[in-house]
Amino acid sequence: MTTQSPMVRATIYGARLWQRHEEMARIGRTSLGGVNRQALSAEDLEARKLLRSWASRRGYEATTDAIGNLFIRRRGRRPRLPPVLTGSHLDSQPTGGRYDGTYGVLAGLEVLEALDDCEISTERTIELVVWSNEEGSRFTPTTMGSAVFAGAIPLAVALETRDSRDTSVAEALAAIRASQSDLADRAAPFPVAAYVEAHIEQGPILERRKARIGVVTGIQGLRWLEVEVRGCAAHAGTTPHRDRQDALMAALELIADLRAQMDDAGEEVRFTIGRLIVSPGSPNTIPDKVNFTVDLRHPDEDTLRRLADTIRDASRQQRGACVVALRETLHSPPVAFDLRIMKSIRLAAEARTLPWIDLVSGATHDAKHLAPLCPAGMIFIPCRGGVSHNEAEAIELEDAAAGAQVLADVLHKLANAPA
Amino acid sequence: MTTQSPMVRATIYGARLWQRHEEMARIGRTSLGGVNRQALSAEDLEARKLLRSWASRRGYEATTDAIGNLFIRRRGRRPRLPPVLTGSHLDSQPTGGRYDGTYGVLAGLEVLEALDDCEISTERTIELVVWSNEEGSRFTPTTMGSAVFAGAIPLAVALETRDSRDTSVAEALAAIRASQSDLADRAAPFPVAAYVEAHIEQGPILERRKARIGVVTGIQGLRWLEVEVRGCAAHAGTTPHRDRQDALMAALELIADLRAQMDDAGEEVRFTIGRLIVSPGSPNTIPDKVNFTVDLRHPDEDTLRRLADTIRDASRQQRGACVVALRETLHSPPVAFDLRIMKSIRLAAEARTLPWIDLVSGATHDAKHLAPLCPAGMIFIPCRGGVSHNEAEAIELEDAAAGAQVLADVLHKLANAPA
Repeated sequence: MTTQSPMVRATIYGARLWQRHEEMARIGRTSLGGVNRQALSAEDLEARKLLRSWASRRGYEATTDAIGNLFIRRRGRRPRLPPVLTGSHLDSQPTGGRYDGTYGVLAGLEVLEALDDCEISTERTIELVVWSNEEGSRFTPTTMGSAVFAGAIPLAVALETRDSRDTSVAEALAAIRASQSDLADRAAPFPVAAYVEAHIEQGPILERRKARIGVVTGIQGLRWLEVEVRGCAAHAGTTPHRDRQDALMAALELIADLRAQMDDAGEEVRFTIGRLIVSPGSPNTIPDKVNFTVDLRHPDEDTLRRLADTIRDASRQQRGACVVALRETLHSPPVAFDLRIMKSIRLAAEARTLPWIDLVSGATHDAKHLAPLCPAGMIFIPCRGGVSHNEAEAIELEDAAAGAQVLADVLHKLANAPA
Repeated sequence: MTTQSPMVRATIYGARLWQRHEEMARIGRTSLGGVNRQALSAEDLEARKLLRSWASRRGYEATTDAIGNLFIRRRGRRPRLPPVLTGSHLDSQPTGGRYDGTYGVLAGLEVLEALDDCEISTERTIELVVWSNEEGSRFTPTTMGSAVFAGAIPLAVALETRDSRDTSVAEALAAIRASQSDLADRAAPFPVAAYVEAHIEQGPILERRKARIGVVTGIQGLRWLEVEVRGCAAHAGTTPHRDRQDALMAALELIADLRAQMDDAGEEVRFTIGRLIVSPGSPNTIPDKVNFTVDLRHPDEDTLRRLADTIRDASRQQRGACVVALRETLHSPPVAFDLRIMKSIRLAAEARTLPWIDLVSGATHDAKHLAPLCPAGMIFIPCRGGVSHNEAEAIELEDAAAGAQVLADVLHKLANAPA
């Protein structure tokens, strides 16, 4: 990679990028202006089709692999060289925002189109990828598509995963494939020259520090734990308090204990219980079972391990008359991104006079699975108030355009780097 | 009513009563041996049809009112006199037991058949009633059918009630009626001479005190409250703990506070949170909303009011960065049963040499809505370990037969009482 080579620069078109966000946000739109476009749903399918309709107007070829990752290809002059990859995801949380994932996909498409508009060819092919099931809210875990691509999860295991209605990933994928018979199959993984993903920050740091571009240095470590508390169902009216084996009350005590141990002065720990299900869930029956998830994050692997051990120890205990069990469903160590890609993002931001800062990603991203395979990096843009995983998620057109422009500059350089 | 009149006594047949429980328990059977036969479901319909098939063999006429209460009529010599009513319900909790409600219905049927077997006619008609939606776990509130019969809930309000899948009572009833076209409509309410309901105790008192028959003196008061805690959804990985408006953590703190205030030395308070729903319910999103139910009971109306006020006051407060709202969905004051019916149950138990005690019902029952309309009472039989609203619910054949025999004796007497 040379950073000095003179190049014609492709200029992205912010209004087009913005308009595409508007159109995409209609798919799965919620009453509060967000989107509900869960992985491999009818809405996810519709979003993929809309993206493909834009890509096919430019003559880009679309392919898909066995876990449903979608690849859209702008051929380079030397198509046998490993391609440069960019992209993100189109699936959302149940009450998600319009930009989480979608921005990275549409910014990637904008780069390909800007190169066409400026009649710029590249040595390497650039491929836009839509990773399957990044959110993990319908099918556990998160970043499933990129994990399968990178071999971090066996394909067979991912295909067997089931949602709360007992539909498997394999079944949901079959339904999506059935209505896209024109989509060619792609063997995966294939060699990748480099991966760069643009994304909204999903946190408040860029906004607070008045930066337009975030140079992401890495991703904090993440562990997902599932805790089950078992008691005994009984009639709410007839059973004295001391005779109860109330799974909900036991779970609440356990959570209060855990919470007290997860607060740190430096505010680096992230401890979240996002899902908690009470069974049988009837107002006049004492609950016999509570299942809850723990999402635990920290930038330091040793600290993360120690915190997870604390939760594991607390969950080994009997809680009153109830029994607690715990299993880990995800362990994603901290990731460091490629130094040359970070440098390339900084240079592009400087050249465009965009204020930038380095930062660690609090959220996990598909890029973490690409990092072991090839030089990988991420570009963040600010989001309003740091609000994300929320229907109120918002960004500014100028920031969207700035991020896409930096992405264009970085991808262009990578696609012309010597083999 | 005369307690001295000489009568031929109908003898109930315990083995038949037991066998019918076995057959009924197959409908909605769960893997742990309980039943899932929620109100107005396909399973509820099937249970009603099975009961009607037994009734029609005896030539009993079946009718239904607008809320789906089912009446099965054994004609007396003076059919224009208000009938004596007995019965309970066939619907269950999502993971309910085989005897809760079902016992009272099948014991009532057994009485009618025993009278036939012994060729005993009665002055008044005796009607067996299956009240609609006693449990209230699919459609809120509990004892809906008897409440509508008694005018405690307007029919139109009950019909508009919706379950968690947005099906209304009216829609569910229409489906049940569609497959019972032979069932005649009945205007309700109609005058009732007396009401006696047999039921399992659902608590441990009879068993502990080695009593076979419980003479129920009344039902403790019950209030249902629904609490909503609203925060703000945000990304689990990027949002520092102090910046969160985590609805689940706020709800847990509120519940811990309430719980501390609901414990009493005398163990008379019953405070239960049976349903708690976390939204959006995704592991990596900070919850923006928690809805939970409070089931609160006490035998004393003033104490019940004071406790409900405590919950109301606590739920008016802001909880951290979250907002709490509360509404009451049910207020059922304590009920006292008819003294003559209580006496009649005691005499029948004495005559059959069955040990009996007086007790207050911890659970609510349809009988509470009949108490303002006519002399009403209840007969309890023991259940194993006091366990109920649980698939492990169990009773003894001898207790089932004893309760049905006392019910037969009491109903026979009531049905021959002078107008």
